[in-house]
Amino acid sequence: MDTADYECILVERDDGYVTVTMNRPQRRNALSSAHMRELIAAFAEIGASDALGITLAANGPVFSAGHDFAEVAAADHAQARELLRTCTHLMRTLQSVPQVVIARVHGLATAAGCQLVASCDLAVAAHSAGFAAPGGKGGWFCHTPMVAISRNIGRKRAMEMALTGDVVDAATAADWGLVNQAVPDDKLHQATRDLLERATRGGPRSKALGKQAMYAQLDRPESDAYTYALEVMAASSQTPEAREGVAAFLEKRSPSWPT
Amino acid sequence: MDTADYECILVERDDGYVTVTMNRPQRRNALSSAHMRELIAAFAEIGASDALGITLAANGPVFSAGHDFAEVAAADHAQARELLRTCTHLMRTLQSVPQVVIARVHGLATAAGCQLVASCDLAVAAHSAGFAAPGGKGGWFCHTPMVAISRNIGRKRAMEMALTGDVVDAATAADWGLVNQAVPDDKLHQATRDLLERATRGGPRSKALGKQAMYAQLDRPESDAYTYALEVMAASSQTPEAREGVAAFLEKRSPSWPT
Amino acid sequence: MDTADYECILVERDDGYVTVTMNRPQRRNALSSAHMRELIAAFAEIGASDALGITLAANGPVFSAGHDFAEVAAADHAQARELLRTCTHLMRTLQSVPQVVIARVHGLATAAGCQLVASCDLAVAAHSAGFAAPGGKGGWFCHTPMVAISRNIGRKRAMEMALTGDVVDAATAADWGLVNQAVPDDKLHQATRDLLERATRGGPRSKALGKQAMYAQLDRPESDAYTYALEVMAASSQTPEAREGVAAFLEKRSPSWPT
Repeated sequence: MDTADYECILVERDDGYVTVTMNRPQRRNALSSAHMRELIAAFAEIGASDALGITLAANGPVFSAGHDFAEVAAADHAQARELLRTCTHLMRTLQSVPQVVIARVHGLATAAGCQLVASCDLAVAAHSAGFAAPGGKGGWFCHTPMVAISRNIGRKRAMEMALTGDVVDAATAADWGLVNQAVPDDKLHQATRDLLERATRGGPRSKALGKQAMYAQLDRPESDAYTYALEVMAASSQTPEAREGVAAFLEKRSPSWPT
Repeated sequence: MDTADYECILVERDDGYVTVTMNRPQRRNALSSAHMRELIAAFAEIGASDALGITLAANGPVFSAGHDFAEVAAADHAQARELLRTCTHLMRTLQSVPQVVIARVHGLATAAGCQLVASCDLAVAAHSAGFAAPGGKGGWFCHTPMVAISRNIGRKRAMEMALTGDVVDAATAADWGLVNQAVPDDKLHQATRDLLERATRGGPRSKALGKQAMYAQLDRPESDAYTYALEVMAASSQTPEAREGVAAFLEKRSPSWPT
Repeated sequence: MDTADYECILVERDDGYVTVTMNRPQRRNALSSAHMRELIAAFAEIGASDALGITLAANGPVFSAGHDFAEVAAADHAQARELLRTCTHLMRTLQSVPQVVIARVHGLATAAGCQLVASCDLAVAAHSAGFAAPGGKGGWFCHTPMVAISRNIGRKRAMEMALTGDVVDAATAADWGLVNQAVPDDKLHQATRDLLERATRGGPRSKALGKQAMYAQLDRPESDAYTYALEVMAASSQTPEAREGVAAFLEKRSPSWPT
């Protein structure tokens, strides 16, 4: 899929950093199948490139309202299941690409829109942002969004979001750990870019392995996580990047990452 | 067991909301076997009713002091094991009933009393409330209470509670995520009722499934949780409640939940 | 290994409390193989003694800079793997000894040095302390340190530490739950000792079992954790310490722990 073919999103590259912008403001950036497929294609394409970091952003007053209700209303069981499989695939893609992925959130992020934020490696929220899992008060329930959300915040808070469906403001989301920072709206771009730049220093290969290995160890029992992480760390100690990083440290010079 | 037969607890129904009140203030609401069996019977009975939400509360200056030490002192290994099996069954019952369960806590909640709070879906604490797992300084250890408590708060904080046995105040408990809110004592009833009402909006069947599915996914590795949650969410998209919720949203009207 | 033979650490005993001090300030307390082996030997020796609690501290301006880069630079895959096996064994030893282990942190604790703090049961940080996992910006990645760190704090915060490598100050570390308290530097010794004393009240055998059982249950799914904790708690109800604790409580007297 060529970038020029995207209808729901914009993809812009700036100096190694790629910004993927949901661009259906009139639809509140609802995650229709077409929209999700474009996001998956874009992340897969950027993932295979030499980009350093990816920002997930949105145009319009709403970050994302979650699934497209017109599409949900028309879906039978098999179609609803396919929608959710696509959505889950999108969330996993955010975590499996080698680049650091950061959400830049303004306005409401609800249901699968909130799940997007929870699934990014990092997230910065403007004070105008709000987060909610409203399915439970709407007759359905945010079952899959809560998988991602409940792995970012405490259990009582996850239950409150899932059961009440009420909006959590940006400052509370930062306090709970759903986002890394809450900043004034006019600082959102700069704060997101600053955190992304800090998160992408160092050798890109070791950073990519590090990100992917984090997700592989996080949900394992501690002893299994050690068994796994120890082998990854031992093997990666021999990579050209690690050798250069250690040598540069010992020689008190800036590293020069091998290409 | 008829409500009128309860000796340790009170059960009151108000407009779809049921309040279960531990009513042995002179025993500091200690969880004797009889007391726990009444709580289990009451929650099972309410769970099978059309109640919308359940508040767990207490009469007297102490929320609950945990196990009845006179009973523990007289117990051999088999009897102690039976006491703990009953207690664990009680905690699981709070999570398995279809209704939202909220703890309304004033005064001290210690050991299995603190475990009750940790096991409810939601909790509001008055500023007079305190939380402790004092077994470790008393020659035994709050092994089973810590299973519930440590799934609500961070690891270092759980270790501090378990090892010191000291009382954590309501504001700290809210900061750590053991309770959802800490409020002045004279606001406790209203704040609890308000949160419970917000948590019980929407279709009761989808909310019940949502609550139960949350506990089923929370402790699983993320990929297993998605596998499970995706199927639950796809299947539940076809329920009358979900169809009505989505239709009402699209038609910009209030939903009318099917009975 | 006799205490007098230690070259990297100091071991001091004061009234049942033992302090293990990393004492290579000129090497920023880097965790060379020799240093780690001494720490393992010291903790194993103290673990087999009747000590009540252990403080892990450091001399010099830096708590610990993590692995010794000179040693890492010279290591092939097998040697790097052996270094990491020793390091992981050290972290597990902190958790497996029967005594409560508390970190007393001033200055920077980075990489495996931060992992030490994350692996102690409790931790108090001076305002001068800082915490970082800088491997990711240095060409390698803090894979094994993040196993411990990510089990103390939320996921977005763990990702931020691992990806940016930037220093988290003491107050933020306390807010996130990586340490129990942040205090002024001139209160560090007293605050650490106070928390350790509060954490070591009660019968030492039940406390030891309690600490070890906590680690055994923490990473299990909740139902498995209950199955395990219930049996440990039932069996330990019959120990002389538990019998004395319950009896003393009922007789309103101070317990006298059996020797």
